[in-house]
Amino acid sequence: MMDAIRDDLEQFEANLRTVVKSDVPFIEAIGDDLLAAGGKRLRPTLAFLANHALGGVTQHGMTVALSVELLHSASLLHDDLIDDADTRRGAEAAFRRYGNVVSVMSGDFLLARVLGLLADANHADFTRRMSETAAKVCEGEVRQFQMAALETWSMDEYYRVIDGKTADLLATAVAGPAILNHENRDVVNTFERFGLAYGRAFQLQDDRLDLMGTAEELGKPVGGDLREGKATHSVLQLIERGHEEAIGILRRHASEASDVERMRQLVQDEGADDLTVEAITQEIAAAQEALAGMPEGPEVDALGALVDRELQRLR
Amino acid sequence: MMDAIRDDLEQFEANLRTVVKSDVPFIEAIGDDLLAAGGKRLRPTLAFLANHALGGVTQHGMTVALSVELLHSASLLHDDLIDDADTRRGAEAAFRRYGNVVSVMSGDFLLARVLGLLADANHADFTRRMSETAAKVCEGEVRQFQMAALETWSMDEYYRVIDGKTADLLATAVAGPAILNHENRDVVNTFERFGLAYGRAFQLQDDRLDLMGTAEELGKPVGGDLREGKATHSVLQLIERGHEEAIGILRRHASEASDVERMRQLVQDEGADDLTVEAITQEIAAAQEALAGMPEGPEVDALGALVDRELQRLR
Repeated sequence: MMDAIRDDLEQFEANLRTVVKSDVPFIEAIGDDLLAAGGKRLRPTLAFLANHALGGVTQHGMTVALSVELLHSASLLHDDLIDDADTRRGAEAAFRRYGNVVSVMSGDFLLARVLGLLADANHADFTRRMSETAAKVCEGEVRQFQMAALETWSMDEYYRVIDGKTADLLATAVAGPAILNHENRDVVNTFERFGLAYGRAFQLQDDRLDLMGTAEELGKPVGGDLREGKATHSVLQLIERGHEEAIGILRRHASEASDVERMRQLVQDEGADDLTVEAITQEIAAAQEALAGMPEGPEVDALGALVDRELQRLR
Repeated sequence: MMDAIRDDLEQFEANLRTVVKSDVPFIEAIGDDLLAAGGKRLRPTLAFLANHALGGVTQHGMTVALSVELLHSASLLHDDLIDDADTRRGAEAAFRRYGNVVSVMSGDFLLARVLGLLADANHADFTRRMSETAAKVCEGEVRQFQMAALETWSMDEYYRVIDGKTADLLATAVAGPAILNHENRDVVNTFERFGLAYGRAFQLQDDRLDLMGTAEELGKPVGGDLREGKATHSVLQLIERGHEEAIGILRRHASEASDVERMRQLVQDEGADDLTVEAITQEIAAAQEALAGMPEGPEVDALGALVDRELQRLR
């Protein structure tokens, strides 16, 4: 990673520390978790790369990086609760230690801080963009639940779920600096298309490996999505073909001992995995096409390297 | 209520309907609940009265009314979950029907809509104000939980809880139009002081009646706060005096059959209820003092009538 981006990310951690400060110890503790857990900071990295690619003011990259990462963190906090997840980024799920009240309210507290950042930036278009993104994130989460509860399985709905879960927020991370820098509509669209396609490739891949990867790669047992009744790309292809056995396994949340292994086999044998690989390859190609329309330089090369990593994960 | 305010409130319901629209049926259902449940619309009424008192643009009153009511509704949705409340505004608690996921995400969805309203208003000071208010609402909720969990009972902390729960948001409803109308600092402060004092009187009274009222008045059993381990004004006076029996009852969340009745008796006999009435009277006086500094007219008279209602509830 370039020095400029490394500096931005360092400054980002310092700023995050300030932004999540609260004089309520229980909230402060969650902020500390957030800092300690760290994570890859993929969204801030995308924002800083996009901002540098445009030669934007440093502050613009920072506004986008902080807003998007806080929105992401808030959604993880609210998701911890929902998924009853045992671990998130390796740290003990916050709500287990402090109860639902603190988990939900700390997420809300982070959202309040996003508002403060947007007030400081004072840029109506970016505020609107964040509003739309936040709405899509919520809708994506509810759609996923709704699809399982009402059995309204469909590929269209699946793409809306992964957009809400990942791609829309990544698109905002990448397009945000262009919006704040008042770039023209074409530039904003190109950056947005990159973020959306890269985000879809990323989430499709994650969902694919959740079933087809190894427990070692994942750091958790395979088939987690299936056991929560979540239909992913490969499984949905079997469902849309009316594959009764696959529907049965999904419906019972893979509750029988051999269900996950059987679904893996079906997905492999019926060619569904191949089609998922093809879908990912398509998104990667779309991301690369968007890259070709961006200003050449080390930042865009770095974005390209992120996309290449997704290509490698396909193997 | 004046015709102008009635018109505003009618327009408010129509606008709310538009704002909470979603093409995800599960979220839409929560929006419908919100409209059907209605409630007193106290916060919008305060915003419209304050805006008319200042001769502000109609849109300013609407921005404040919608933002504040949506923030309030979001906090109720997240609170339903937390309190495990059986009923809220008489409607079945949303989360019972749809599960935690929809309740939390629908609250988040409403917050996203607040962001959209703030983008439309494009007024940095009001956005910042909403950010600070939202943070205080969360902190208030967590403080309440924290006070029970860590037994850090104190009157100071109690006031921070009721400010976060009620008074800060009411203050923003009343001061919001002044902020959007770019009134000078003194005017904003006067409106804010009114909202804060009225909000404290209101919440002190609610907390008082939760223990000292009748089940008939409350529409639910008395002592609900006590059974959730929440220390309110009267009880805190006994706690701060080191009253062992009261501490015992609070600590066990009034789990023994006669606990609530015994606490009522203690609060009465030890003069704690009288001191709570005195505290409410003080807040009412502060609200009336702020009113005296506002432009005379039917709107300020109407705000005065709201305060008088709190005086009557004291009897």
